[in-house]
Amino acid sequence: MLFLTRRATFSASHYYWNDAWSAEKNGQVFGRCANRNGHGHNYTIEVTVAGEADPVTGFVVDLKWLKDVMEREVLAAWDHRHLNLEAPEFASATLNPTTENLAIAAWKRLEPSVAAAGGARLSRVRIYETPEIFAEYRGEP
Amino acid sequence: MLFLTRRATFSASHYYWNDAWSAEKNGQVFGRCANRNGHGHNYTIEVTVAGEADPVTGFVVDLKWLKDVMEREVLAAWDHRHLNLEAPEFASATLNPTTENLAIAAWKRLEPSVAAAGGARLSRVRIYETPEIFAEYRGEP
Amino acid sequence: MLFLTRRATFSASHYYWNDAWSAEKNGQVFGRCANRNGHGHNYTIEVTVAGEADPVTGFVVDLKWLKDVMEREVLAAWDHRHLNLEAPEFASATLNPTTENLAIAAWKRLEPSVAAAGGARLSRVRIYETPEIFAEYRGEP
Amino acid sequence: MLFLTRRATFSASHYYWNDAWSAEKNGQVFGRCANRNGHGHNYTIEVTVAGEADPVTGFVVDLKWLKDVMEREVLAAWDHRHLNLEAPEFASATLNPTTENLAIAAWKRLEPSVAAAGGARLSRVRIYETPEIFAEYRGEP
Amino acid sequence: MLFLTRRATFSASHYYWNDAWSAEKNGQVFGRCANRNGHGHNYTIEVTVAGEADPVTGFVVDLKWLKDVMEREVLAAWDHRHLNLEAPEFASATLNPTTENLAIAAWKRLEPSVAAAGGARLSRVRIYETPEIFAEYRGEP
Amino acid sequence: MLFLTRRATFSASHYYWNDAWSAEKNGQVFGRCANRNGHGHNYTIEVTVAGEADPVTGFVVDLKWLKDVMEREVLAAWDHRHLNLEAPEFASATLNPTTENLAIAAWKRLEPSVAAAGGARLSRVRIYETPEIFAEYRGEP
Repeated sequence: MLFLTRRATFSASHYYWNDAWSAEKNGQVFGRCANRNGHGHNYTIEVTVAGEADPVTGFVVDLKWLKDVMEREVLAAWDHRHLNLEAPEFASATLNPTTENLAIAAWKRLEPSVAAAGGARLSRVRIYETPEIFAEYRGEP
Repeated sequence: MLFLTRRATFSASHYYWNDAWSAEKNGQVFGRCANRNGHGHNYTIEVTVAGEADPVTGFVVDLKWLKDVMEREVLAAWDHRHLNLEAPEFASATLNPTTENLAIAAWKRLEPSVAAAGGARLSRVRIYETPEIFAEYRGEP
Repeated sequence: MLFLTRRATFSASHYYWNDAWSAEKNGQVFGRCANRNGHGHNYTIEVTVAGEADPVTGFVVDLKWLKDVMEREVLAAWDHRHLNLEAPEFASATLNPTTENLAIAAWKRLEPSVAAAGGARLSRVRIYETPEIFAEYRGEP
Repeated sequence: MLFLTRRATFSASHYYWNDAWSAEKNGQVFGRCANRNGHGHNYTIEVTVAGEADPVTGFVVDLKWLKDVMEREVLAAWDHRHLNLEAPEFASATLNPTTENLAIAAWKRLEPSVAAAGGARLSRVRIYETPEIFAEYRGEP
Repeated sequence: MLFLTRRATFSASHYYWNDAWSAEKNGQVFGRCANRNGHGHNYTIEVTVAGEADPVTGFVVDLKWLKDVMEREVLAAWDHRHLNLEAPEFASATLNPTTENLAIAAWKRLEPSVAAAGGARLSRVRIYETPEIFAEYRGEP
Repeated sequence: MLFLTRRATFSASHYYWNDAWSAEKNGQVFGRCANRNGHGHNYTIEVTVAGEADPVTGFVVDLKWLKDVMEREVLAAWDHRHLNLEAPEFASATLNPTTENLAIAAWKRLEPSVAAAGGARLSRVRIYETPEIFAEYRGEP
């Protein structure tokens, strides 16, 4: 079994907020992240697929194809966007765009394309909010 | 002459816009950066002071003091903020928070404190918007 | 299952030595690391917790809390210290402060606080001695 | 169980090609990588061994020994080489030197030495072609 | 005066050789770099322009334009190429594609476009062969 | 004029102390760095030489030669050492091994060898104590 990983970066804004709470409680729980003007990050997404190397090409998947999938499914929706206002999974739900939730949401965006292509399966999605903080999701067992 | 540099990071949102232009022209000139919901970055600020090493301490300046100046003068105003809406130099003026303008604005914020401390002078301020893009300002000659 | 990771850095001194050996044998086995004046590193500690994202906050754990735990349990004891002389687990025992032993020792320092908080479990501790060398401990199965 | 990792870098040339295909098809599948003059990378190899820390030394393996094994078994054959023309596993076979195949080939080069030394087992080999692309092999289960 | 910098990366092969010397002397002077099969690197090019920030846009130059210039003038000729065989300045001359010569050659490729655009001047070109080695050219005084 | 730079790393211990002061005052001025057990860093030294590219080799200086000079003149004296106790310039004088003083001391160690070789001159020495802090010395004008 081989694990092949590709990284990409995107720049986005977000804030953390719970409508059911007072502004005071939001500030207590979310600190400076509760500022509803938003702040932003240079996010890194790291997508890992698992499979066998094709005996002719030597590829688990074509990395150009994987880059295109990442750009079409994730970056087109999130790059240079305000995640709370423009990313469908966060704008339409009471879901905070935390690093953890971004990792799950990116998995859901990527998994159908990887599965449809056959050959390899999505193994891991990692999102870095900063070089010091990252979340990883490996799907449901 | 010695040059001593300290780095710090901050996360902020911004967009680029010119009120005198139509939305169409703003989009043509500023591309995805014209999205007024904002997007964001993990910025790095790199502050360089120039001077002689104190013969007793071996310091050009005390790096703890420099860190405090950077936090008080720059990070307190810009970190976890929307620069267009909350940073005074951009909120109160028709000035886009480009990397270039951030470098000049940070210089103006830092220079009086460095000058007042005596001994060393502010030599250079560099702002990284991403690891691939940075602007540097060295003051007026 | 989500895995959330936070990094921090600390600067410390260490050397490698076995009292039961001659100076010559210590030199043969430990090379330049046997210099008992000590040498040092900028260590990076990477702490990973595993759990579910809280449906309200979107957090596996509060990253501010995790940072505080890391600072209180690990950095307060090791940062700007000589590990052989000042870190209790190495000063009081015949244990070399290798990267491997630091990973186990950091796990033992962190695990009770993570377990006591409930919700998430400590999944992995990684210590980088340099960018080229790191050790990882995942607890006992 | 502890996992100890060491990184090294090497610079090499490669291209992707399948003799059974036309030049046109090679270009369609492999894009710019089909240029048979070759292009190159600064590769990073990351080798992880798993085991217990020796109670006397605190080592899973001696990192100097691991460095020597990596240099003798991998870097001596691949560093400053054209992988398609000079690396035996690629020059003598119809195997493309993809990141995936390099990870498997490095495992095969390293595993006998680690196994012969006893105490620790080879756990993982990761090859970075660029900071954005890497492949990982963990051996056969 | 502001200095604005943009980075890009390219992957290329090269070797060092002097036709006027014996193979033995080439090996003595150029070491492993004299291997005429070539080896390669992930190069980074860092281009700095100097000028004033436009009062309306806040730009010294449009970074999208600068990226296009770098891709058209440098990356189109050098990326995924064998520099000794395919880059015109090295293929047609007895010039080794050292990091130093790449910096000068990139300057010559970029300077006319920057000058023609007006407003800013090319200030510095830096080429990283590896993260440990780089050359910088600032034009003739 | 070309500027050619090579980086290397070394690991060393240090502390800051002034014998003329009380322990209390040392603590006030130097904070945690006054701990006389020492602490340590992975330092990076970046050495820049300036000159013309040799028309035959394309080298400002031979980078293998520069690496050897850096290892012989700087790393042999400082790597895996306690700078206050073992580096001659700090052990024999009342000079604190600050990043600033290390930059000057490295310049003095390197300059004679670069001058003796002819062709290029030492232009700049930069010492990183951490990725966030660095000092640069350019010699006397």
